[in-house]
Amino acid sequence: MSDKENYHMSSDEFKRFGYKIIDWIAEYHRDIESRPVLSRVNPGDIRAALPNTAPEQGEAFDDFIRDVDKIIMPGITHWQSPNWFAYFPANTSAPSILGELLSAGLGVQGMLWSTSPACTELETHVLDWLVDMMGLPRHFKSSNTGGGVIQDTASSATLSALLAGRERATKYQSNKKGVNGRLVAYASNQAHSSIEKAIKIAGIGSQNLRYIDVDENFSMIPEILAAQIDLDLEAGYTPCFVNANVGSTSSNAMDPLQEIGEICARRNIWFHVDAAMSGTAALCPEFRFIHKGMEYADSYCFNPHKWMFTNFDCDVFWVKSRKELIDALTLTPEYLRNKASESGQVIDYRDWHIQLGRRFRSLKLWFVIRHYGVEGLQYHIREHVRLAQQFADWVRGSNEFELVVEPPLNLICFRHKDGDGASQKIMETVNAAGDIYLTHTKLNDQFVLRMSIGQTKTEERHVRHAWDLIQQAAKTL
Amino acid sequence: MSDKENYHMSSDEFKRFGYKIIDWIAEYHRDIESRPVLSRVNPGDIRAALPNTAPEQGEAFDDFIRDVDKIIMPGITHWQSPNWFAYFPANTSAPSILGELLSAGLGVQGMLWSTSPACTELETHVLDWLVDMMGLPRHFKSSNTGGGVIQDTASSATLSALLAGRERATKYQSNKKGVNGRLVAYASNQAHSSIEKAIKIAGIGSQNLRYIDVDENFSMIPEILAAQIDLDLEAGYTPCFVNANVGSTSSNAMDPLQEIGEICARRNIWFHVDAAMSGTAALCPEFRFIHKGMEYADSYCFNPHKWMFTNFDCDVFWVKSRKELIDALTLTPEYLRNKASESGQVIDYRDWHIQLGRRFRSLKLWFVIRHYGVEGLQYHIREHVRLAQQFADWVRGSNEFELVVEPPLNLICFRHKDGDGASQKIMETVNAAGDIYLTHTKLNDQFVLRMSIGQTKTEERHVRHAWDLIQQAAKTL
Repeated sequence: MSDKENYHMSSDEFKRFGYKIIDWIAEYHRDIESRPVLSRVNPGDIRAALPNTAPEQGEAFDDFIRDVDKIIMPGITHWQSPNWFAYFPANTSAPSILGELLSAGLGVQGMLWSTSPACTELETHVLDWLVDMMGLPRHFKSSNTGGGVIQDTASSATLSALLAGRERATKYQSNKKGVNGRLVAYASNQAHSSIEKAIKIAGIGSQNLRYIDVDENFSMIPEILAAQIDLDLEAGYTPCFVNANVGSTSSNAMDPLQEIGEICARRNIWFHVDAAMSGTAALCPEFRFIHKGMEYADSYCFNPHKWMFTNFDCDVFWVKSRKELIDALTLTPEYLRNKASESGQVIDYRDWHIQLGRRFRSLKLWFVIRHYGVEGLQYHIREHVRLAQQFADWVRGSNEFELVVEPPLNLICFRHKDGDGASQKIMETVNAAGDIYLTHTKLNDQFVLRMSIGQTKTEERHVRHAWDLIQQAAKTL
Repeated sequence: MSDKENYHMSSDEFKRFGYKIIDWIAEYHRDIESRPVLSRVNPGDIRAALPNTAPEQGEAFDDFIRDVDKIIMPGITHWQSPNWFAYFPANTSAPSILGELLSAGLGVQGMLWSTSPACTELETHVLDWLVDMMGLPRHFKSSNTGGGVIQDTASSATLSALLAGRERATKYQSNKKGVNGRLVAYASNQAHSSIEKAIKIAGIGSQNLRYIDVDENFSMIPEILAAQIDLDLEAGYTPCFVNANVGSTSSNAMDPLQEIGEICARRNIWFHVDAAMSGTAALCPEFRFIHKGMEYADSYCFNPHKWMFTNFDCDVFWVKSRKELIDALTLTPEYLRNKASESGQVIDYRDWHIQLGRRFRSLKLWFVIRHYGVEGLQYHIREHVRLAQQFADWVRGSNEFELVVEPPLNLICFRHKDGDGASQKIMETVNAAGDIYLTHTKLNDQFVLRMSIGQTKTEERHVRHAWDLIQQAAKTL
């Protein structure tokens, strides 16, 4: 970077301000526990502190840092706090932040192999590593019929899978002629909202998404799925897609992959498995029960940006047959033609997802895996599950609270025995105090508290403190 | 960050390695001109240098940096080189890289206002700034009926616009019942491939995308559009979407927004304008001719990650009616319900695009605008256009080359007078030498060289050198 009078930041300035931001981040993470987890600003507060128009002349970088502290930080809800127990985690880690920085510095586009071969090859390679690290079916590897790709989110992965299923079911006619209004898809009634969103986007229509009933563990009942598919076939519908949860968002429910997979295989319906948060658990052999039956899946995704210390966005998505995915999503305009692509020897990831442009996201994942090693990753996953199971024991031993469902991994769904009002009041009390943050869901029409344990730095003392606060809040009811 | 025996990187280590990566990036950008722009590796070279399995134990960060230099860098095609004249630019700048770093350090999710209010409010605010900075219609502002949102790419923005148009045309029945196979959409035959991809994704079918003929400047002929719409209406089709280019990818062609807009307005068809690369030019009043008629657009997008020094991903997307966009894309599962959203006082950006999760992308855009000021941004845009027009003059004055179309801004389409073989040979020669990188397209079935000028650090000497190399390559034919 040059030093001239052309408005650019000089190389020396970049280093100086870069060090400042690095220091700022180190201090932010060091002191994060002292901040209320949930932002307390009111709507409009942040905007009111910002000037109405952009500056005509450039301003000093030190002023940006000052404004981040003064204006932005009060409006931050601290997802990286170890006292974060809301939603699912979206955790990160030091090596991941540095990988993202390096990716921004390189500023390459990975839409085609030829537009930066390392961007494509490192991604393919690390996703092959993950197949082995997690004991996933070997056909997901690029050396086999499949392959993996980094998507931004599970929403996009689900949509890509749905499109591949839609095209398989209609022999690629939907892409040409449009959807005919007779396609149907299936998910449990606990499926994430991104399934319905994908169904709408893909032109299938929410009325044609069949929500299948669940058992007492909120897991899909395969017999009901099979019966519904048969009913639809008799009625002249075309089943094109089944989604199964490995860890539903509400309650971490596990759908029976083996039984669902057999149903799909018999009828050649695309079978997608969404393990957005829970998938990471399979790093530990003792938790691989969550993936029993995965060999039936046509596609599978989970989010290292949730529970694997890799900052958002990083959803990893595999297919059993890359040909089917590519056939559903490819297009080649003249300005993207090149010799490498036409040789058939390379992967062009633009054909594996919705977007064309893509950045070098595998760098951060590579850094995380290399920094922690399989052993370090396993250590933290085991620790989070242990803490969650301990919390569940505390709930079981309590007179005031009860578990709503048995927790398979690191999400505890519980409620106050006095019912919805009490549970909601407790949530509002602890969130308003700011020491911790947790959110709710509804299960069987009951208001349920969700204690989601998976932030990078969450330790036993944080979970104990959360339980203390929850109990205290219950006392003030 | 803690220092304990838990596999985490300590705070001190993070600072030390952070400084190293900052230094590495500063040096990379300082010395980038010494690297061949286009990577020279062969398919598989990068993977062959990587271990077959992930490490069991964590490794040293210094080894990652060593491997980036040794293994990754040979596989990088240098989009940030000032000798980059290929495709469109995907430029970045020092303040943008630091903004991305800060965003990674904060690690917040902006899916709802409440999940980090500053993430939503800064984004809304900066996109309101841009409306004023570029003289865009005031109804695009959030204080009016519209509003802006950052999308990852123009592909996603186009898809979102198409879905809003699809739902308007079918009175929200496509979302419910699915697409009925009778929807049609329109774009010039120069439209970006992302239009066709979106049409397929949305279940409309590529056969129902009408490619409208263009004039000698490759601009859509509005009379042909109007006639085609009337034909379709008579045949019982439902027109739902018209896309116009402000700067087509092949040749930077400008569609006549005013005339197209009037046609759409009369028939209440969603009118989307895609200015992915060229939109940035409107920072300069003298280039705002490209937006004449923009007041008719229902939606508009351009990419600061192409020509506005903000690293990928950063597409900015505005709508005239935020209600219509949200109605097409919203869903509210129980686990996302919260008081702020239900108050109606806040924006929840998850309802403005395909994905649910989203990171704090406005930070980098804010840093870029504040660092350069409107004045600094204008300086570089004017300089790039001046250099491109100068290059066009050189082509005009040459005996061997000719312009294929008059260049409105910063993309020059030209060819060797000996025809396709000569043009292609020249491109391959200069790209193989590595000093510069340019790509091609086809216009009127002819092979056309594209000289695209917009990388952050491209100066007159780079453009002169490129022209010298092109002329030299022509001499060796």
